Amino acid sequence: MKTRIAIFGYGNLGRGVEAAIAQNADLELVAVFTRRDPAALRIRTPGVPVLSAERAPEYRNKIDVLILCGGSATDLPVQTPKYAAMFNVVDSFDTHAKIPAHFAAADAASRAAGTVSLISCGWDPGLFSLARVYADAILPDGKDETFWGRGVSQGHSDAIRRIEGVLDARQYTVPISAAVEAVRRGEQPTLSPRDKHLRECWVVAAEGADKARIEREIKTMPYYFDEYNTTVHFISAEEMARDHAGLPHGGSVLRSGVTGWNKEHRHMVEYSLKLDSNPEFTGSVLAACARAVHRMAREGMCGCKTILDIPPAWLSAHSGEELRAHFL
Amino acid sequence: MKTRIAIFGYGNLGRGVEAAIAQNADLELVAVFTRRDPAALRIRTPGVPVLSAERAPEYRNKIDVLILCGGSATDLPVQTPKYAAMFNVVDSFDTHAKIPAHFAAADAASRAAGTVSLISCGWDPGLFSLARVYADAILPDGKDETFWGRGVSQGHSDAIRRIEGVLDARQYTVPISAAVEAVRRGEQPTLSPRDKHLRECWVVAAEGADKARIEREIKTMPYYFDEYNTTVHFISAEEMARDHAGLPHGGSVLRSGVTGWNKEHRHMVEYSLKLDSNPEFTGSVLAACARAVHRMAREGMCGCKTILDIPPAWLSAHSGEELRAHFL
Repeated sequence: MKTRIAIFGYGNLGRGVEAAIAQNADLELVAVFTRRDPAALRIRTPGVPVLSAERAPEYRNKIDVLILCGGSATDLPVQTPKYAAMFNVVDSFDTHAKIPAHFAAADAASRAAGTVSLISCGWDPGLFSLARVYADAILPDGKDETFWGRGVSQGHSDAIRRIEGVLDARQYTVPISAAVEAVRRGEQPTLSPRDKHLRECWVVAAEGADKARIEREIKTMPYYFDEYNTTVHFISAEEMARDHAGLPHGGSVLRSGVTGWNKEHRHMVEYSLKLDSNPEFTGSVLAACARAVHRMAREGMCGCKTILDIPPAWLSAHSGEELRAHFL
Repeated sequence: MKTRIAIFGYGNLGRGVEAAIAQNADLELVAVFTRRDPAALRIRTPGVPVLSAERAPEYRNKIDVLILCGGSATDLPVQTPKYAAMFNVVDSFDTHAKIPAHFAAADAASRAAGTVSLISCGWDPGLFSLARVYADAILPDGKDETFWGRGVSQGHSDAIRRIEGVLDARQYTVPISAAVEAVRRGEQPTLSPRDKHLRECWVVAAEGADKARIEREIKTMPYYFDEYNTTVHFISAEEMARDHAGLPHGGSVLRSGVTGWNKEHRHMVEYSLKLDSNPEFTGSVLAACARAVHRMAREGMCGCKTILDIPPAWLSAHSGEELRAHFL
């Protein structure tokens, strides 16, 4: 029995989910919903309809899971509770500070409808959350640090693009090696945002734009840049297309902790990712999560869940027997 | 409500579990059972009785979980099913090839008794199994490799000690950097046991023993050493005590995989451990697992489980709300 999936929103992430579904024999793409003109959208999977978002409710009994591929700022806070009232849903909501409120909204909708909603499952939040929770459970006397990059931050790139005179921009988040190494050595340093990451910006300016002003506006932008050391490089549109077309990302979660009656033994747990394509990898996480959501629904569960609530085996296409024989 | 735990077997691992319980406010050590003379055993936790193994059944209603700290070769295959008939149990059974049979025996005992038995939960099998299963679920088109060390292998050290003329021995498993780096670069090389690990042996020989024969017997020992490049160093008992008293270990699970319609994007997932004390870290995993077993039993589950069946949040002392707010 395959897990029948529909994708809601066909941007970078939606395309990543589509590619991931094609890699998994037990997952099946049934429909793609878009708020754009469906006739204008070309998808890759043969024979799968592209439909207007309004038609999603028609698929209530035709799919097992709806994967929501919108953004965390404005799309998901509305869409996740709305569609959790009709479907089992999966999202990658990643505004960490607003997760409890998002959870509460999705939980209320899912409990009323008897569906499962799984929120915030990409790689951070998602796989990195798992790394933090496992390591904290095992080494309670310890400290963790998360480093991101080197990789493209879509949010920071978008923030630069909103500055007057900017035609295009790409922002790389870069972990500072000295900080990573100090954490890896178990020194448990106290690190400010500036100590942990650099922000590297590549900007295409409009002809005649005041580059000094653009650079100043980037570097002083509250929250996004003002707490970091930031470099700004102006390049041509051709250089941008040639050198910055990809969306790589990655990072590490490190936890150092001590055990023993005199805290005499030190341990280091490190989980790291190096990704050529952030949206395709995130889409792959969402696809595995859709499999688990289908399983949770079959087990009679309902309400909002996170990846912390999922037995790891349920994310896998392999049976318990196969996992015990070959993976354990 | 605390999780009341008893430890069965007070060797290195049992002592590691005891130290871990002391680090967790929600876990409580209630008793230690030993097959040695209880009067001869000094434990660290004040006020906790040390009792003969035969008295374990008296604690049926006094503990929530029994942690079995015996060895995988002869102890656990007998003890886990035996005590699963009386208690919720946790073990760190680590003979990978025999896990399915051990699972079946524990499952039958637990189902008949309505208990939960959690097997094979240390770091490999255990945390490394989790790393393999998560990475495989997300990157099905990929390949993983597990490297162990640099660290002391108790099994290999014991095997050397059984050779005539050997008074003491310590065997370090050493991952070969060139192999690790090739895997890390995503090259997916085909690696033999010899390509992946060196075996480094430190041996105290009896006076007058034939060192050349000992070295030859080590290097040609089937399964343990014959498939590896092995170095043998003879040292004094004083040097052994001074330089090789610790039980460090560690290792890495790496998975490289591809995504995209033309497999054009490469991803690397790496999970690694660097441990000063293998038994204390393994004991810390078992302690967190005891918490989860207690939770599973309260939820009405029974039968044999592995760490692949446990929702990650159940290993944690923190509530779902805390985890979502601070760890997700």
